[in-house]
Amino acid sequence: MRIIPQSEVERLLPVGPCVEVMREAMIRVSRRDVSLPIRQFMPVPGVAGKLALMPGSLGTAGEAEDASFGIKLVCKYERPHGDPLGTHVGMVMLFDSAKGVPLAMVEGSSLTAIRTSAASALATDLLARKEAKVLAIIGNGEQAMRHIAAMQAVRAIESVRVWGRDAGRAAAFAKEAGQRFALPVETAPSVAQAVAGADIVCTTTSAKEPVLAGTDLEPGQHINLVGSAIPTTAEIDTDAVKRTRFYVDYRDAAMAAAGELLGAIRAGAVSEAHILAEIGEVAEDPALGRTSPADITCYKSLGVAAQDLAAAHEVWRMAEAEGAGTIVDLLA
Amino acid sequence: MRIIPQSEVERLLPVGPCVEVMREAMIRVSRRDVSLPIRQFMPVPGVAGKLALMPGSLGTAGEAEDASFGIKLVCKYERPHGDPLGTHVGMVMLFDSAKGVPLAMVEGSSLTAIRTSAASALATDLLARKEAKVLAIIGNGEQAMRHIAAMQAVRAIESVRVWGRDAGRAAAFAKEAGQRFALPVETAPSVAQAVAGADIVCTTTSAKEPVLAGTDLEPGQHINLVGSAIPTTAEIDTDAVKRTRFYVDYRDAAMAAAGELLGAIRAGAVSEAHILAEIGEVAEDPALGRTSPADITCYKSLGVAAQDLAAAHEVWRMAEAEGAGTIVDLLA
Repeated sequence: MRIIPQSEVERLLPVGPCVEVMREAMIRVSRRDVSLPIRQFMPVPGVAGKLALMPGSLGTAGEAEDASFGIKLVCKYERPHGDPLGTHVGMVMLFDSAKGVPLAMVEGSSLTAIRTSAASALATDLLARKEAKVLAIIGNGEQAMRHIAAMQAVRAIESVRVWGRDAGRAAAFAKEAGQRFALPVETAPSVAQAVAGADIVCTTTSAKEPVLAGTDLEPGQHINLVGSAIPTTAEIDTDAVKRTRFYVDYRDAAMAAAGELLGAIRAGAVSEAHILAEIGEVAEDPALGRTSPADITCYKSLGVAAQDLAAAHEVWRMAEAEGAGTIVDLLA
Repeated sequence: MRIIPQSEVERLLPVGPCVEVMREAMIRVSRRDVSLPIRQFMPVPGVAGKLALMPGSLGTAGEAEDASFGIKLVCKYERPHGDPLGTHVGMVMLFDSAKGVPLAMVEGSSLTAIRTSAASALATDLLARKEAKVLAIIGNGEQAMRHIAAMQAVRAIESVRVWGRDAGRAAAFAKEAGQRFALPVETAPSVAQAVAGADIVCTTTSAKEPVLAGTDLEPGQHINLVGSAIPTTAEIDTDAVKRTRFYVDYRDAAMAAAGELLGAIRAGAVSEAHILAEIGEVAEDPALGRTSPADITCYKSLGVAAQDLAAAHEVWRMAEAEGAGTIVDLLA
C-alpha cells in the first residue's frame, strides 16, 4: 500500500480537478452507488478529544474499476490556536473493493479541506449565476482561504469581501488572501455589509448561532453553508433558509445534522420537502437547479465519506502514476 | 508514525510475553478502563466481502502512559483455500490518547492470531490444573497451530491430539506441528477420542453446529472455545455449557455473540448468571476460578478491541526501542 503525506496531497489534488472528482462522487451518492454508514464518535478517556470514524464505500466491485471502500479516521482534539497539528489529525484508509486489499493511507486534514471546498465549488458551478464575480467569505479560518481558491476554479471572481468576528484576524486574513490570489480582498465591518452586492456567499464559521439573516440576502445570490455540521448549530437563520432554494449533499445526513434546516423545520417554517434536491441530482438534471437570475440558491454542505474516498482514490491514482509517496508492504 | 509489517509483528510479539500483555489488558477490560463500542460490519457492494471495524480505547490519558485508542480494520473476503492473503487482511491503527496523534499501523492478521491464542493461554493459566499436560486441539487451521504454541507458554504440554473434519489435512497438520514443536502430535479419529484423557481442550473450528458434546467431557478438564464468534454458531452443545464453570472475556460481548452460551440460554438450560466471571476478574481474584481438581472450566473467547490495542501498543513499544519497521510522517 502507498502512504501519501500532506505535501503530496496538496500537490496531487489541486482544487480545480477535485471539483470534477466531486461531480462524479456526488452523482454516485445520489444514485446510491455508495454505502454511507452513520459516522461514529468515540470519546477518548481522560482528554477533551474524540476519534471520529467515517466509513463508506464508493461504486460497485465488478462494475467500476475505481470501486473502493474504507474509512476516514480523525482525532478531534482541542488544541491552542496556532498549534501546528490543528484540531483535526487523521487519515483516509483506502481499500480496493474487488480485491479486498489496502491501496493507500492518505493524510486526512488536507484531503478533507480540499474536497470540502471542491464540493462547495461544484455546488456553486451548478447553482450560481454564470456571471457571478463578487465573493463574500464569512469566517477567516482555513476553509475561508480554501473557499476563495475553490470559487475561482468555477467562476471569474473579481473581488472578495471577508467578515470575521475578530477584526484583527480578519484584516490579516484579507491581506494574506489578497497576496496569495492577486485579488482585491477587503474586510467588511458586518456580515450584512460583506454580503450586500455579493454574488456568492460562503459561510465557514464556527458560529453556534446564525450570523447571516434572511434580510441580508439579495436576489440572484448563491450561498454555500460549510461551517456547521451538527444539528444544534446554524450559520443562517430560519428566514434565510425559507427564502432560498435549498440543496444538500445527502438527504439522510441533512435530516440528521443540517442545523439550519432542522431549526427551520422545528420552527414550523418549512418541511423536509424544502430540500429541492441533492447536488448530485442537480448535476444529472440541471433543471432542478436555479430557475431564474433572481433565485437565491443555498447549498448545505455536511460532507460524506464518499467524498473522502473519491478524493483519496484520485490522489492514489496520481501517486501511482508518478511513484509519489512511500510504498509499504504490511505482509512483508 | 511507525508502519510495522507482519514479519516484525511475529518477531516482536512472541506468544509468551503476549500472555502477560493480555493479562493486563483483560484486567483493564474488567475494570472498564476501556471503551469498547459495538463492532460494525460494512458489506462491500459487488463482492462477497465486508469491512469489519473494531474501534476501542485502552486506559485513561493522564493516568497511564500507554493510554491509547484506535481501530482494527479487517477486510473479510472469501478467498480460495491456500490463497496467500488468507480470509482476513487488515491492520490496527494505534493512536496516543494524550496527544491525539497516530503512533503506528500494525499488520492485523498476525497480531490477531497471536493475541487470540495468548488470551486463551491467559485463561488456561488462570483456570487449568497446574499439572495439565495433555492437549486436545479440535480444528486444524491457523488458530489450531497458534494454540499449540500458546498452551506451551503456560503449561508443560507433553502430548497433543488433533481432530479435523478432513482426515488428510489433520494428518498433515499433526506432522507439521510435531516437527515444529518437537512434541508427539497425533490425530484422533473422533472429537470424543481426541478429548478423552486430555487436560486442556481448544476448539478452533469453523463449525456451525456443536462438535463437542457434554458427554465427551471429563472432570478436571479446561476448555477454550475460540472458533465461533457469532450468536448462531456453536462448538460445544448445551449440555457441555451446563456442565462447565463458564468464563468469558467481556460480558457485553458474550451476551451479544457467544453462540454456545446463548444457545444454552435459549434452551432454558442456564441463565446469564451462568457466566461466573470475566477472565480479567479471575486475574484479579483467583478465588473466582477453579475450586477443585474435578471442576470442568470453560473459557469463551470472542475477542475485544482492547486486546488488539494492547498487543499493538506492545509491538509499537518494542519497535520504537530498536527502530524496527518504517517511519512515515503523514504531515510531511
